[in-house]
Amino acid sequence: MSFVTVPENSHFPLQNLPYGVFSTQKNETPRIGVAIGDQILSLTEVAHLFDGPNLASSQHVFAEKTLNSFMALGKAAWKEARCTIQSLLSTDNPVLRDDMELRKRAIVAQSDASMHLPVAIGDYTDFYSSIHHATNVGTMFRGKDNALMPNWKHIPVGYHGRASSVVISGTPITRPCGQTKPAEDKPPVFGPCKLMDFELEMGFFVGKGNKLGDRIDITNAQDHIFGMVLVNDWSARDIQKWEYVPLGPFLGKNFGTSISPWVVTMEALSPFIVPNTTQDVQVLPYLKHDDQFNFDINLSVAIQGEGMNEPATVCTSNFKNMYWTMKQQLAHHTVNGCNSQTGDLYASGTISGEDGTSYGSMLELCWKGTKEVNLGSGNVRKFLKDGDNVVLSGYCQGDGYRVGFSTCEGTIKPAVI
Amino acid sequence: MSFVTVPENSHFPLQNLPYGVFSTQKNETPRIGVAIGDQILSLTEVAHLFDGPNLASSQHVFAEKTLNSFMALGKAAWKEARCTIQSLLSTDNPVLRDDMELRKRAIVAQSDASMHLPVAIGDYTDFYSSIHHATNVGTMFRGKDNALMPNWKHIPVGYHGRASSVVISGTPITRPCGQTKPAEDKPPVFGPCKLMDFELEMGFFVGKGNKLGDRIDITNAQDHIFGMVLVNDWSARDIQKWEYVPLGPFLGKNFGTSISPWVVTMEALSPFIVPNTTQDVQVLPYLKHDDQFNFDINLSVAIQGEGMNEPATVCTSNFKNMYWTMKQQLAHHTVNGCNSQTGDLYASGTISGEDGTSYGSMLELCWKGTKEVNLGSGNVRKFLKDGDNVVLSGYCQGDGYRVGFSTCEGTIKPAVI
Ligand SMILES: [Ca+2]
Ligand SMILES: [Ca+2]
Ligand SMILES: [Mg+2]
Ligand SMILES: [Mg+2]
Ligand code: NI
Repeated sequence: MSFVTVPENSHFPLQNLPYGVFSTQKNETPRIGVAIGDQILSLTEVAHLFDGPNLASSQHVFAEKTLNSFMALGKAAWKEARCTIQSLLSTDNPVLRDDMELRKRAIVAQSDASMHLPVAIGDYTDFYSSIHHATNVGTMFRGKDNALMPNWKHIPVGYHGRASSVVISGTPITRPCGQTKPAEDKPPVFGPCKLMDFELEMGFFVGKGNKLGDRIDITNAQDHIFGMVLVNDWSARDIQKWEYVPLGPFLGKNFGTSISPWVVTMEALSPFIVPNTTQDVQVLPYLKHDDQFNFDINLSVAIQGEGMNEPATVCTSNFKNMYWTMKQQLAHHTVNGCNSQTGDLYASGTISGEDGTSYGSMLELCWKGTKEVNLGSGNVRKFLKDGDNVVLSGYCQGDGYRVGFSTCEGTIKPAVI
Repeated sequence: MSFVTVPENSHFPLQNLPYGVFSTQKNETPRIGVAIGDQILSLTEVAHLFDGPNLASSQHVFAEKTLNSFMALGKAAWKEARCTIQSLLSTDNPVLRDDMELRKRAIVAQSDASMHLPVAIGDYTDFYSSIHHATNVGTMFRGKDNALMPNWKHIPVGYHGRASSVVISGTPITRPCGQTKPAEDKPPVFGPCKLMDFELEMGFFVGKGNKLGDRIDITNAQDHIFGMVLVNDWSARDIQKWEYVPLGPFLGKNFGTSISPWVVTMEALSPFIVPNTTQDVQVLPYLKHDDQFNFDINLSVAIQGEGMNEPATVCTSNFKNMYWTMKQQLAHHTVNGCNSQTGDLYASGTISGEDGTSYGSMLELCWKGTKEVNLGSGNVRKFLKDGDNVVLSGYCQGDGYRVGFSTCEGTIKPAVI
């Protein structure tokens, strides 16, 4: 289908075409590209070939250092860009295929590229939309009968996160220091986090936003969503526990949030739409939609500790475990007139499934420290150790092809006291 | 002292020199200026006169549309700029005084100017640092004996706010709609907020930030703080109450936060330093500092409803009521390695004093709706009505002069259903 070879099980066949920002040793300027097989097509080099009605006069968006300007153009432009790229890369089209000079400039091996944050993120919100995760955490801290808060099935609960510390996959994460309260009857102490955790999440980027005072109606919320990435919402459980009442998580979260480098568009994900999770409590009209907007995305988490020969999978989950849809999240977030802006990141919350192999955090996997998680060859964990590399992966399985997210990785560096 | 006339009790004498971003009908490009009396000195027009060692090669910072690049230069540059501006405006210096051509271009009446957000705000954090406010709210909802949470005297408690909806004084605020739960035993309902409130706060802007993984030490936290503004953290109490457990305030807050237009620098505020509030619980070493960093800033809130001839003052408070200092807030925020960036806004939390005339929100003034607040001439309020203009004011009283913030205003527009 493409003249660029796409290896078997590659996350990046012609059906995907995710957007990212990369640089190379030869050219250190970050620029926009699209992943194809194990290569990158530099859109900066082929910007002049986007000659459709929506992009002909906006080719400059591909010369920028983030996707924001392109994302701000809206759905018609996104669709046109996808068409153009699919055509440019296809076996049948000689324009790029036979122009060896241009191919040499425009196609770069992923192994030669460094990836950068694809989007300038204005605001970052983290939801809490997996019912299994919310139930697990609630059961641990409040018991089975009060696991879900009374508002949980009425509101896609969320909170504001820290945009400045969202980093690209591969960025090392320093174990945070902070206040914790190890003993009820003693004063708090200062030191490195002892309950370091990951959270398996996904996030979506807003393409077109809404003005302050307006809202995004649920019936067209999908038109505002550009694409998705994997998200690891690193969490310091002991810091979070002592600080979070009454205003929510703060330093237990804001020391780092990692995202995968390639933004997979909603067009590429559309073949993997599945029925929404049944909501057994009636929601208010502004949150109601009948169209399907849930996605079958296989997710997993693996940990490779120092001295381990290979990563050990600790969690196998799926995005379709979400109780609330992204449309509901966005309609809720803006129903009070809060303005979304191009580049805002909205994360799902930890995506846990029903059974114990699908829990999306160490907190749940070790059930609050009451059991060990086996990594094989005698390696066990409750929470994360220094040197642990945590690898989130995700892909949709098509008929003979995959639409994937590659990985979202990060290694824990020792605390600096 | 200045050849520009400074009216009596002006907030903007030569001792102040706050920075803002303005435009005029004649020139709609937002540009950087300094308030002097009821005039503005356009720094864009006099950029070439900043010829000291720190600014001679950075004059371009005054040609930008926000203060960020100037703020990023750091303390030595801020000091030099202040010296230069003080000299340029002083009666003794002929350079600007006698250049009528330049004066005409560079000095603009405030009455001819529209003010814009002075800073591009990356992240916005709201603290909760007035002990009287925290005690009042805690008493209302948990009773007098459990008013302060166990962590409150150990941690300058804060949460992430929404940066996109921070707006400049004068921007109308639309009454938000949202979910509330008026009756315990009935499902939530959707509609306009019924308990609309203001919060009297101040905020500081970070000048120079810190890298992810580093921290800002309390001993030099003051070097990272550029200046301050008035902040009104508009709050929808009924929406907030139903949504905020367990992850904190969200839609009850993020529909709008107003700031005053002029950023008053820490140099201008330094004569008004007063002793820090005594902290009767020992804090951890990373939060300890002996130098005074509390400020005597007179604050007030007035409300003018539709049909009222003048605003009625409902609150008279003072910034020195803060329990935690801004140095402690910044050291805490970064102790886990969270990166601050130039332009980040850190708000104080509601600044209430000890007695009932100094409460910084309607929630406290009407004591959760149990009593009416008198606005005179038969006008009373519990919470805010549509059409109410809320005016925050603040100034420091010097010996024969004031260093002030002018006002932070906003009028409530009816909800859009
Ligand atoms: Ca999370
Ligand atoms: Ca507040
Ligand atoms: Mg995080
Ligand atoms: Mg607000
Ligand atoms: Ni932000």
